[in-house]
Amino acid sequence: MTVTIINIGDELLIGQVVNTNASTMSRLLTEAGMEVTRTVVVGDVYKDIWVAVDEAMSESDAVLVTGGLGPTKDDITKKLLCEYFDSELVESEMALENVKRIFTARGYELTPVNRAQALVPQCCEVLNNDLGTAPCMWFSRGERVTVKGESKKVLVSLPGVPFEMEWLMRNRVIPKLQQTFHTDIIINKNILVQGIGESFLSDLIEPWELSLPENIKLAYLPVAGMVKLRLTARLAGDFPLSTFHFPLEGLYALAGQYIIGEDCETLDELVHKTLTERGKTLATAESCTGGNIARLLTAQAGASSYFRGGVIAYSNEVKECAIGVKHSTLEAHGAVSEETVREMVEGVRERLGADYAIATTGIAGPTGGTAEKPVGTVWIAVADATHTVTQLMHYGDRRQQTIDRTTNQAYSMLIKLLNVSA
Amino acid sequence: MTVTIINIGDELLIGQVVNTNASTMSRLLTEAGMEVTRTVVVGDVYKDIWVAVDEAMSESDAVLVTGGLGPTKDDITKKLLCEYFDSELVESEMALENVKRIFTARGYELTPVNRAQALVPQCCEVLNNDLGTAPCMWFSRGERVTVKGESKKVLVSLPGVPFEMEWLMRNRVIPKLQQTFHTDIIINKNILVQGIGESFLSDLIEPWELSLPENIKLAYLPVAGMVKLRLTARLAGDFPLSTFHFPLEGLYALAGQYIIGEDCETLDELVHKTLTERGKTLATAESCTGGNIARLLTAQAGASSYFRGGVIAYSNEVKECAIGVKHSTLEAHGAVSEETVREMVEGVRERLGADYAIATTGIAGPTGGTAEKPVGTVWIAVADATHTVTQLMHYGDRRQQTIDRTTNQAYSMLIKLLNVSA
Repeated sequence: MTVTIINIGDELLIGQVVNTNASTMSRLLTEAGMEVTRTVVVGDVYKDIWVAVDEAMSESDAVLVTGGLGPTKDDITKKLLCEYFDSELVESEMALENVKRIFTARGYELTPVNRAQALVPQCCEVLNNDLGTAPCMWFSRGERVTVKGESKKVLVSLPGVPFEMEWLMRNRVIPKLQQTFHTDIIINKNILVQGIGESFLSDLIEPWELSLPENIKLAYLPVAGMVKLRLTARLAGDFPLSTFHFPLEGLYALAGQYIIGEDCETLDELVHKTLTERGKTLATAESCTGGNIARLLTAQAGASSYFRGGVIAYSNEVKECAIGVKHSTLEAHGAVSEETVREMVEGVRERLGADYAIATTGIAGPTGGTAEKPVGTVWIAVADATHTVTQLMHYGDRRQQTIDRTTNQAYSMLIKLLNVSA
Repeated sequence: MTVTIINIGDELLIGQVVNTNASTMSRLLTEAGMEVTRTVVVGDVYKDIWVAVDEAMSESDAVLVTGGLGPTKDDITKKLLCEYFDSELVESEMALENVKRIFTARGYELTPVNRAQALVPQCCEVLNNDLGTAPCMWFSRGERVTVKGESKKVLVSLPGVPFEMEWLMRNRVIPKLQQTFHTDIIINKNILVQGIGESFLSDLIEPWELSLPENIKLAYLPVAGMVKLRLTARLAGDFPLSTFHFPLEGLYALAGQYIIGEDCETLDELVHKTLTERGKTLATAESCTGGNIARLLTAQAGASSYFRGGVIAYSNEVKECAIGVKHSTLEAHGAVSEETVREMVEGVRERLGADYAIATTGIAGPTGGTAEKPVGTVWIAVADATHTVTQLMHYGDRRQQTIDRTTNQAYSMLIKLLNVSA
């Protein structure tokens, strides 16, 4: 079955907000075996929303709409859907109870603006939104017939607040879609590749790629100095899953030396998983990455089991006083040098009592470079009790890119060290 | 003039990648006075791309397409555009020179796969891509007439790699669009509001909102414990800009106590700007935010002028040894307590020799809570040489949301302290 996603909001069209709702919804639907064929963003403009809804209703089995349900003046979705489905606004008892429950829990008084959130088109079914006051509305048109011969056509309107939307998708919308439509089984597999560019990788693995069966698709996703290969298999709903496996032997034979891990979306996830499984601890000393290496790990639940802590050694004084880099080392070699990064990684590992450590120091730019050490010069180190590995990288003058690439390079070096130690 | 953006890529439709290209392009076009009326994402599917292009060409003055231009097998945009514009693929001398230049600079040999990147539809104009091998292609159809009476119709195909796309937008595409079409002047203004929910704010400022002139639009953008108000004015291209100002007096009269700043997208940007202007320094001691407060500041060019460094005090040992929280304090009150956060903020400020400091300690969850201190309990502190301000917050059990809200709350407390000290 096919799905179109429509996200409504002027803030998306003027680029003030990144549309993470589309990617969250797409991921959840894909994992549930549904095929998102299109996502559309339109502004808070009646005609534009109407056209998008109408196109989508004629093209897809299900249409999911977010946004435009808040209590403020720029929200018009509900009135439009009422007209589109030839219905009228009525107060939903279920939605009103929900609004009251949430206001009582927060200790607020119910204002008329908030009470109006319980108004919904009479023809829809309300799916209860446990986390917020905006209702989730399910519309179905049994009479329409799609090209696939399915006799159902569904539109679901969800609030645009990301955590409410995600909770509703997981707990209300996807289960109901799965009951309503037949769905394929979709299996994804990620292979994380590091140390080779996209086009060289493509040449290298072409014979394997050409040998893949019709129902397996391969995509290249380059991100910050790494390429994620994504394999997607589409299987019939009654396929015996235990007999399926991706044909990876050919890939490993051709490019095994560049493969750093499987089954993770990102290298931080792979580091998190590996350290958790091994029961080993980590400390970080970050200069040019400014805390990015630590925050990606600590954003994951359970990081406290392995992450001891870190130092963001932005100034030389902090490098000296907090992690014991010698004043003479900084004087003789500078903050961006192999000697300094080595003392950083060994110092932070020892002082914070961790099994492993990561350190970075570099010139993220766009200014601060010299002829000898241009912007983009970065030293990275990883260490355990007996090994210290350092590496010099030359990135360009794009600050965020240098931070992101340094972060991934450091994770990748740590994983290699973990594999050596294992 | 109106623009439709089409982003192509299976990775977007299965939700593995967030579509930041759409927001970057929308922001740049909006700033240049153009109106993005729709953004569409379709997969690497010939028919779906064709339909999206054809719809967009009939609805908008300009259509910008990203993706599908790489050297790998899943990229089909170029062939499709060739057919759509009734043209044939030829080798562009300019594009070939560019590919050669980039390969020479990187010290790589030119493979046939890469040489094929210089093939373009004969009818297009190549806009040179200084940063990459994929060409940017400009197609125009002079004969089409739009509803607005403009006699031009443009389609531009750009690579999907974010930094190449952004460079091309700024340096090639937008200047050429501005030469080709008449554009309005768009002025945006952001007001950052903290300490009041969206619906209460809406009630509070309604009289002012209703008094706004027709050409000024207001939008509410709630993000992580804060509401960003965005005012957008649309002015004719010949409007004398020096005479324009947003009518903010009424807003300040009603909600001034909640307004924390203007003219920034985010609170980290406001902190960055304020510390830079004042020439004051900052240190951070982060537990539950895990480096997030530091990394948002250090992602901004010039942070080294005020950011001394930080400690990510994830374990109790690090709280003690790196920032001098007393063992007895941790024993008596626990890591998540007013006493601990106070010693953290004062300790890190003193040890790192900064004018100001921020500290956070809390239970981000989803596990680790107790009856007395449930998941979401967070203590935040800011300090200068003579004041320490602490605050207890109760967030929910969503880890990333707690991290983001704690981060914004800490920035907001710092800005208030900076304003008191000033």
